[in-house]
Amino acid sequence: MATPLDSFHAVIPAGGAGTRLWPLSRASRPKFLLDLDGSGRSLIQQTWDRLNDLVPAERIHVVTGHAHAAAIREQLPDLTGLFVEPSPRDSMPAIGLAAAVIGAEHPGAIIGSFAADHVIDDQVSFAEAIGQAVAVARTGLVTTIGITPTGPSTAFGYVESGDRLDVEGAGSARAVRSFVEKPDAETAARYVAGGAHSWNGGMFVTRTDVLMGHLERLQPGLHAGLRTIAEAWPTSSRDDVLDRTWPGLTKIAIDHAIAEPVALEGGMAVVPGEFTWDDVGDFAALLDIGAASSPETVWVDGSGLALSEDGTTIAVVGLDDVIVVRTHDALLVVARDRAQQVKDVVAELRRRGRDDLV
Amino acid sequence: MATPLDSFHAVIPAGGAGTRLWPLSRASRPKFLLDLDGSGRSLIQQTWDRLNDLVPAERIHVVTGHAHAAAIREQLPDLTGLFVEPSPRDSMPAIGLAAAVIGAEHPGAIIGSFAADHVIDDQVSFAEAIGQAVAVARTGLVTTIGITPTGPSTAFGYVESGDRLDVEGAGSARAVRSFVEKPDAETAARYVAGGAHSWNGGMFVTRTDVLMGHLERLQPGLHAGLRTIAEAWPTSSRDDVLDRTWPGLTKIAIDHAIAEPVALEGGMAVVPGEFTWDDVGDFAALLDIGAASSPETVWVDGSGLALSEDGTTIAVVGLDDVIVVRTHDALLVVARDRAQQVKDVVAELRRRGRDDLV
Repeated sequence: MATPLDSFHAVIPAGGAGTRLWPLSRASRPKFLLDLDGSGRSLIQQTWDRLNDLVPAERIHVVTGHAHAAAIREQLPDLTGLFVEPSPRDSMPAIGLAAAVIGAEHPGAIIGSFAADHVIDDQVSFAEAIGQAVAVARTGLVTTIGITPTGPSTAFGYVESGDRLDVEGAGSARAVRSFVEKPDAETAARYVAGGAHSWNGGMFVTRTDVLMGHLERLQPGLHAGLRTIAEAWPTSSRDDVLDRTWPGLTKIAIDHAIAEPVALEGGMAVVPGEFTWDDVGDFAALLDIGAASSPETVWVDGSGLALSEDGTTIAVVGLDDVIVVRTHDALLVVARDRAQQVKDVVAELRRRGRDDLV
Repeated sequence: MATPLDSFHAVIPAGGAGTRLWPLSRASRPKFLLDLDGSGRSLIQQTWDRLNDLVPAERIHVVTGHAHAAAIREQLPDLTGLFVEPSPRDSMPAIGLAAAVIGAEHPGAIIGSFAADHVIDDQVSFAEAIGQAVAVARTGLVTTIGITPTGPSTAFGYVESGDRLDVEGAGSARAVRSFVEKPDAETAARYVAGGAHSWNGGMFVTRTDVLMGHLERLQPGLHAGLRTIAEAWPTSSRDDVLDRTWPGLTKIAIDHAIAEPVALEGGMAVVPGEFTWDDVGDFAALLDIGAASSPETVWVDGSGLALSEDGTTIAVVGLDDVIVVRTHDALLVVARDRAQQVKDVVAELRRRGRDDLV
């Protein structure tokens, strides 16, 4: 008997270094490959586990660059669907490539895209949200999961929900009125008080043919390129066509290419995600998700997070809410409320020509 | 022709780990062996240089424990007078040993004791102070150098000066009225405003026979033990007598054994030291003496001192007046105004049985 997720494929775009988590994350060792919460599984492995609980391994696809393909294969030994981009062109070409190829092979397939480097807690709620999103996507709407805010965060974009939709198996689905960028504190507080706004977790669930249709209309050049690649995919000219076509694809995020314009046309839906979610954007977020300090740490009138990647002992004296990260080749000390500025360290190191450290 | 410093011998007691400079200083690598100010010379080498400018190498003596004898010989290749204590018995037995042996060999000798781990700037003023102190000591007074305060420090003891003395070649000498312990801030401010108080830099200049005479009266057991050792010193039984006698010597600092009681009897004098002096008691002091951060350090809205002993890059974001010290095996992050509490880290590490780190 068919189950609701039978035609569902998961796509994991794995890109971006996460410069605000330097020196843990590096260009050569991006955030998604790291075990940031000390769980024993990297963020992409946790993402895999979460999705593999819903669909078999052969329906989980990862899109990444050449630099990280080997590490991903090593971390995800059951992965069969790895798309290797010739160069980074942002999230729309990455997800579009998977959509075009999967849709050609499995007409009517529904894909959901999930960032490789987010943290989600509560698998039951996650599965419930995916089930509803797939039911809504089947009706032809591009569906996102709106994370129920735990507070007026200014670190995330928001989804404004509109009228309730009448979809069987998706009792909580609503139309999306609009997507809004990261707000200021006052606006965020108003959003959370109002109840119509949820966090944009960057998760999109859609029929491949619906996505390709939107692309054909909104980004015809990109659409044509993806079609060309998808047609060559099962043939011996796959790599030639990919290498030739890819550099010409429009570099654009799925939010700008699809989510924002389609929402304004009434083509987007949102289902609530009641689970704990974080994009672990900086070290303050890492503290928020409960990351533990290295057990050897000595605190004397101090508090915060101390991570010693090389196992050496860290001592903190007379400083509260401080984050200390030691790797074999670098050391970061940052005030918790300045965690966003760590990217400035990476910029400065690049300026100094210390690409070996970034 | 005889010069005023002809009978002068310098004695450098080299002991004490300096736990407030952990993780730079360790039991096995005490403060005096470290190049703390980046000058290229360790503190004991700087002390040697300062004294060797005044007296020849054969009149500079170091007293230390077995653990550091080899390192001192390596750092001071011209040193001929090394006294190795069988065990640490504080400063009075250490200086007393040197006084007894030097006095037996050179009747009428004047010794000056100088800590191995202090920083002094302005050799001209230092030499001027020593010259005056030796002139006063020749008259039979135990003479200290009172450091002219640069501010109302609560980190040092003070010397209260009394009446002016009439000694040729020591126009600034005064009697010592008393020695006072580290004061509170209000008292320190009053001392500095009053003008009669100077910092006790722990430098004592005295005729050996005068010192031994005070010891015979005030610490007769210690005096007898030192005499016994000094008599055996030129003989083949030196080591036997030293090992047998040393453990019974009273463990006491020269301040308590001699300076404080003799001052109350009117037997102490003080000459002013107009030079910059610091005992580099903690990392805040290290900042005060102008220690420079490792050149690779990246500061983003931050300030303080960042020392990377292993050459790795340190980045500090959003923290002012912070001190960061990285060694190959440990890491300290401390607020400048909490620098004294670093000793609590060492205590905690001992409690945890991490003697390898202290």
